[in-house]
Amino acid sequence: MHIGILTGGGDCPGLNAVIRAVTLALINEGGARVTGIERGFLGLITRQVRPLDARAVEGILAQGGTLLGTHNRCDPFHYFGAGGADVSAQALAYARDELGLDGLVVIGGDGTMVIAHRFEQLGLPVVGVPKTIDNDLACTERTFGFDSAVAVVAEALDRLETTARSHGRVMIAETMGRYAGWIALEGGMAGGADVILLPEVPFDVDEVVRVCAAREAREGYTLVCIAEGAHARGQGLSVSATLADSPDPLRLGGVGPWLQHQLQPRLQSEVRTTLLGHVQRGGSPTPYDRVLATRFGYHAAQLVRQGRFGRMVTLRGEACDSVPLQAVAGQTRTVPADHPLLAAARGLGISLGEPALPPA
Amino acid sequence: MHIGILTGGGDCPGLNAVIRAVTLALINEGGARVTGIERGFLGLITRQVRPLDARAVEGILAQGGTLLGTHNRCDPFHYFGAGGADVSAQALAYARDELGLDGLVVIGGDGTMVIAHRFEQLGLPVVGVPKTIDNDLACTERTFGFDSAVAVVAEALDRLETTARSHGRVMIAETMGRYAGWIALEGGMAGGADVILLPEVPFDVDEVVRVCAAREAREGYTLVCIAEGAHARGQGLSVSATLADSPDPLRLGGVGPWLQHQLQPRLQSEVRTTLLGHVQRGGSPTPYDRVLATRFGYHAAQLVRQGRFGRMVTLRGEACDSVPLQAVAGQTRTVPADHPLLAAARGLGISLGEPALPPA
Amino acid sequence: MHIGILTGGGDCPGLNAVIRAVTLALINEGGARVTGIERGFLGLITRQVRPLDARAVEGILAQGGTLLGTHNRCDPFHYFGAGGADVSAQALAYARDELGLDGLVVIGGDGTMVIAHRFEQLGLPVVGVPKTIDNDLACTERTFGFDSAVAVVAEALDRLETTARSHGRVMIAETMGRYAGWIALEGGMAGGADVILLPEVPFDVDEVVRVCAAREAREGYTLVCIAEGAHARGQGLSVSATLADSPDPLRLGGVGPWLQHQLQPRLQSEVRTTLLGHVQRGGSPTPYDRVLATRFGYHAAQLVRQGRFGRMVTLRGEACDSVPLQAVAGQTRTVPADHPLLAAARGLGISLGEPALPPA
Amino acid sequence: MHIGILTGGGDCPGLNAVIRAVTLALINEGGARVTGIERGFLGLITRQVRPLDARAVEGILAQGGTLLGTHNRCDPFHYFGAGGADVSAQALAYARDELGLDGLVVIGGDGTMVIAHRFEQLGLPVVGVPKTIDNDLACTERTFGFDSAVAVVAEALDRLETTARSHGRVMIAETMGRYAGWIALEGGMAGGADVILLPEVPFDVDEVVRVCAAREAREGYTLVCIAEGAHARGQGLSVSATLADSPDPLRLGGVGPWLQHQLQPRLQSEVRTTLLGHVQRGGSPTPYDRVLATRFGYHAAQLVRQGRFGRMVTLRGEACDSVPLQAVAGQTRTVPADHPLLAAARGLGISLGEPALPPA
Repeated sequence: MHIGILTGGGDCPGLNAVIRAVTLALINEGGARVTGIERGFLGLITRQVRPLDARAVEGILAQGGTLLGTHNRCDPFHYFGAGGADVSAQALAYARDELGLDGLVVIGGDGTMVIAHRFEQLGLPVVGVPKTIDNDLACTERTFGFDSAVAVVAEALDRLETTARSHGRVMIAETMGRYAGWIALEGGMAGGADVILLPEVPFDVDEVVRVCAAREAREGYTLVCIAEGAHARGQGLSVSATLADSPDPLRLGGVGPWLQHQLQPRLQSEVRTTLLGHVQRGGSPTPYDRVLATRFGYHAAQLVRQGRFGRMVTLRGEACDSVPLQAVAGQTRTVPADHPLLAAARGLGISLGEPALPPA
Repeated sequence: MHIGILTGGGDCPGLNAVIRAVTLALINEGGARVTGIERGFLGLITRQVRPLDARAVEGILAQGGTLLGTHNRCDPFHYFGAGGADVSAQALAYARDELGLDGLVVIGGDGTMVIAHRFEQLGLPVVGVPKTIDNDLACTERTFGFDSAVAVVAEALDRLETTARSHGRVMIAETMGRYAGWIALEGGMAGGADVILLPEVPFDVDEVVRVCAAREAREGYTLVCIAEGAHARGQGLSVSATLADSPDPLRLGGVGPWLQHQLQPRLQSEVRTTLLGHVQRGGSPTPYDRVLATRFGYHAAQLVRQGRFGRMVTLRGEACDSVPLQAVAGQTRTVPADHPLLAAARGLGISLGEPALPPA
Repeated sequence: MHIGILTGGGDCPGLNAVIRAVTLALINEGGARVTGIERGFLGLITRQVRPLDARAVEGILAQGGTLLGTHNRCDPFHYFGAGGADVSAQALAYARDELGLDGLVVIGGDGTMVIAHRFEQLGLPVVGVPKTIDNDLACTERTFGFDSAVAVVAEALDRLETTARSHGRVMIAETMGRYAGWIALEGGMAGGADVILLPEVPFDVDEVVRVCAAREAREGYTLVCIAEGAHARGQGLSVSATLADSPDPLRLGGVGPWLQHQLQPRLQSEVRTTLLGHVQRGGSPTPYDRVLATRFGYHAAQLVRQGRFGRMVTLRGEACDSVPLQAVAGQTRTVPADHPLLAAARGLGISLGEPALPPA
Repeated sequence: MHIGILTGGGDCPGLNAVIRAVTLALINEGGARVTGIERGFLGLITRQVRPLDARAVEGILAQGGTLLGTHNRCDPFHYFGAGGADVSAQALAYARDELGLDGLVVIGGDGTMVIAHRFEQLGLPVVGVPKTIDNDLACTERTFGFDSAVAVVAEALDRLETTARSHGRVMIAETMGRYAGWIALEGGMAGGADVILLPEVPFDVDEVVRVCAAREAREGYTLVCIAEGAHARGQGLSVSATLADSPDPLRLGGVGPWLQHQLQPRLQSEVRTTLLGHVQRGGSPTPYDRVLATRFGYHAAQLVRQGRFGRMVTLRGEACDSVPLQAVAGQTRTVPADHPLLAAARGLGISLGEPALPPA
């Protein structure tokens, strides 16, 4: 048996742990030969591969990134390097006929799974391993990399808290999360944020001002954790009256700076913003993520050995399971309105920027 | 409503996060008055309490230990301070009549829950929050503090690995886990251990020697992660022939040093042992544990508000739930023989010290 | 003896360690009474003080920020709260006559030392402790907080490196350092940056492009560490021909984004920027900074006990010393052109953005 | 020019940073060819070497250990593999004649420098780079690895403090430092120890009991940081009357457990000991150590280029310098009695275990 592995999409702590687990398990339990495809699907086009064995994956468990490299935008069905042409047949021929792959383990997100599914339909057996730092893939409760991103956010809030407290400031930390607010929610809860703003819960600027002003008088400082995809009520497709004159968030460099621009004139404290940026997706995975990624990789190897292709590994509670590849396509797992962590936040007096209910 | 909180048993990262969440939620949502009992049940005997409010719990989320203090051995039903006499009536009178508590939130392990259950039966309504750094409490899949302990073990293994590799050594790290091997298992997997030895899987010294010798020849070094409660086949109540002459593990200062004593004469490499000790239970909780502890605390406050006393908070999959207090008594959740992480370890070629199967 | 302590200017890891050391040493060795002035010199105007004793400073050694609070802009000689009026006499009367202070320990930077010196001249004995996260104060080789900031930068570069390598990108990290490049220089060296750009060494955009392009072809990725005060040759007061049409760095949100804007069109790799921002000055001090801050605080207490007022603590090699307060005023200790770390960087092939010498 | 590099003695964070700096600087500035000798001087006997170039040292800056491997006990002048015979001529012939080395950069401690000096005298030009995690080498104020070890100790004390405080315990942490107490002193100061016991300052058990008892009554807990080489007055070569009946520290597994055995019967609190062990010398170097190691490596390369062999790199204040190789032989730089950090410790009320002065 000869199995290929590739990592697609943005990088994420834990990718190497998956590669290691898949490789070791396929070799130890399946007697397989394993080949790494470099730079995601691009390697199938540019013919960049490398053999993987126990020695090749030695010591990579704790390393961030992916030793195979990855590529954000490479889709063989619309190849940017050929003016958008479909070069999938060529990639397939290389993988199946030339390399002689009996199957492919694809580690990636939503978009990568769509491509993987199409290759599966063309006759290249595929097992998928979900990867999203945002934790927003359908069908799986957790994905590796997320805990590491949350840890970066929490540590940053720990640091910003000392500055906020010493100076009596409002500190805004903008996190990743364009469509789903998981990182801001868990990171904010873990870092002791006083205000947490998510894409799923449009916030009211007046309410954020009210919370900051109340804390200004009482505790003297406020920590705000805002997802990059959060938006004020009325801000977004349609623009509300109150926001019509305000600068566009994108022009200000993000919703964090935009919020600072809204808050500063209405507060006495200084307001400062930190964009956490790419540090959220780099670096060594947390021990939690190393274990989860290892389990995902081992489960993928089992699916391969059992010939259960066309499926993607998932986590349900404490157990690994799998779903058909196409089940995840085109869906984003956002924070549901009834998620217990939202209730916990509200219950602890952490503001989600929701307007207070009008008196009955 | 006037609610007391106490923390019992050994300390654990996340206790303060629970105290904070219970306090804030009871005040914000329940309009309750909250009182902290100091040093576990001892405070009910020595009458040491302090009021808890938003200010008192400000900034404690990320702090290790418990601001209320705790006590390992205080049982009012057999009070060490009174020659083992039962002083529970006095403690009850103080709590219920004098302080006027309508209920008590008790954060602790197995032993603490047994005491809590007895107070509940005497008429003091109790909600329990499970606490065990070893992750070995029945009825709940995860407990806070465990992730922090695993992180300490993994980081230590990361450090020991560089020394093992540079010197070509066998490095043994002994972790907590007298009856259950969760910490050694997850910590060892996260830290890249080559051999993981658990209380649940008696190990064969010959097999450990075989693995170390094979790695000596190939990779040049070996990382062993051993739970303090692990034991060799035959070692324990009955002593096998091969071990009869070997020194007692306890006399050598633990099973780690004992194993070193077994391995050293049979290997060329130097063998060294590190006892991770109390650093595993101290310090700031990981972000994961901060969120889990906050959720546990919030759920406990909800049970109090709903009048659902006599129950202990649990985690099932991603959801908090609860079970009757007595359900956890006297049980230890050890690593089951069919746990997927054991299979993953074996599949990746990590030795559990099990003897190789005899040829058919 | 009754001594006051205050912290002025921006916060910095280690302030609490100084406060603790000054307080404990004055009490233990000098039998002094110690009073903390809150929010820098502002507390002398708003009359906000608190007594400091062993209990008050217990456990603050490892905490970031300052438990006394600080204020960026409060100068009693030009008080912003009174339209710029001089309220120093009032502050002096409060400190000396009302509080009965025999001396004041002032922890702060250049600006704070100027104010401290003026109070000293008015008859309030002052000992200064240097504080600058940028390490750019005259007369002292190191200041506490700098090592912590360097550690944040290095850890961020460690994280960005995995992303840069996985994606084949140019990652730019913008650090603090408006006038002096110490943080970018040491942080960049510690984090393995390939290009380090400092205020003291104007960089040549063409040269940076050349380095990135060469690495694009060879290593595949580049890490750039740039101080916020770095600037291209010709950029700054006068604008060179090649830069005349480019957007203003400030309008783009800093020199990091500006550099990205310059590089992107001239490289094949994606270029991304991370602004490290306020996390550089928050959080727990590194052990190195805790020791240095403790030594500074102890030395300040000794100066007080010896009646050697009007002086600021300094570090020379491994020894604490002191200089007259006025010696530091108005000077910035920038990275000298002959600093050995610049030579080391060049020697290791790390680019400082200097144009290559023309062939003879 | 063809230069060899080897690392000798115990491993230490920063070795790889030195190897990288030496290699890059010799190649970039000297046009040299560089060869790594594996496992210390052993590689010169077993003929294990590898070429080093920019690619070989890519990404090793932040890695712990040494990619060349090391060996604790290999001395070619008394080779353990040849019954103590002198195989130096053979090693010399291999290095100079066969490999064609023009010089050797030797990174190691006291013992390694003695061997290096003998090779130098035999005609193999050597430049030494000092390495000691204990910071106890003569002629240099700081060595890389020490800051990393101090950071491990401080972090451990941070963790132990939460447990000590929560339980009201005396926690003893035993650190490295057989002859010199630098690690215990700086680590203890950085970690907030209440008692610091060093080899250089024999401690009085009664005094340690007195301090712990006083804290038991007041703060409720005590943190003790003790170097492995610390000893009680009278303990050691001669045994005092009061200690004559007590068990031997070595038999109890170190001076930490021995001290616990002394304290426990005389205190009400529980006393617990943690042996920090090998984690102190493993893992990624701190940013401080990465910069220092890089500077040492660069300076060594400069000495090579200048033909200044027979010298070892040193640090004086902020500047690198060098001394003759033989200057460091047989000396240990212990903490001098007048070191300012000892005075600072005493001044802050931290006990060094010295008996209180008798009343006049």
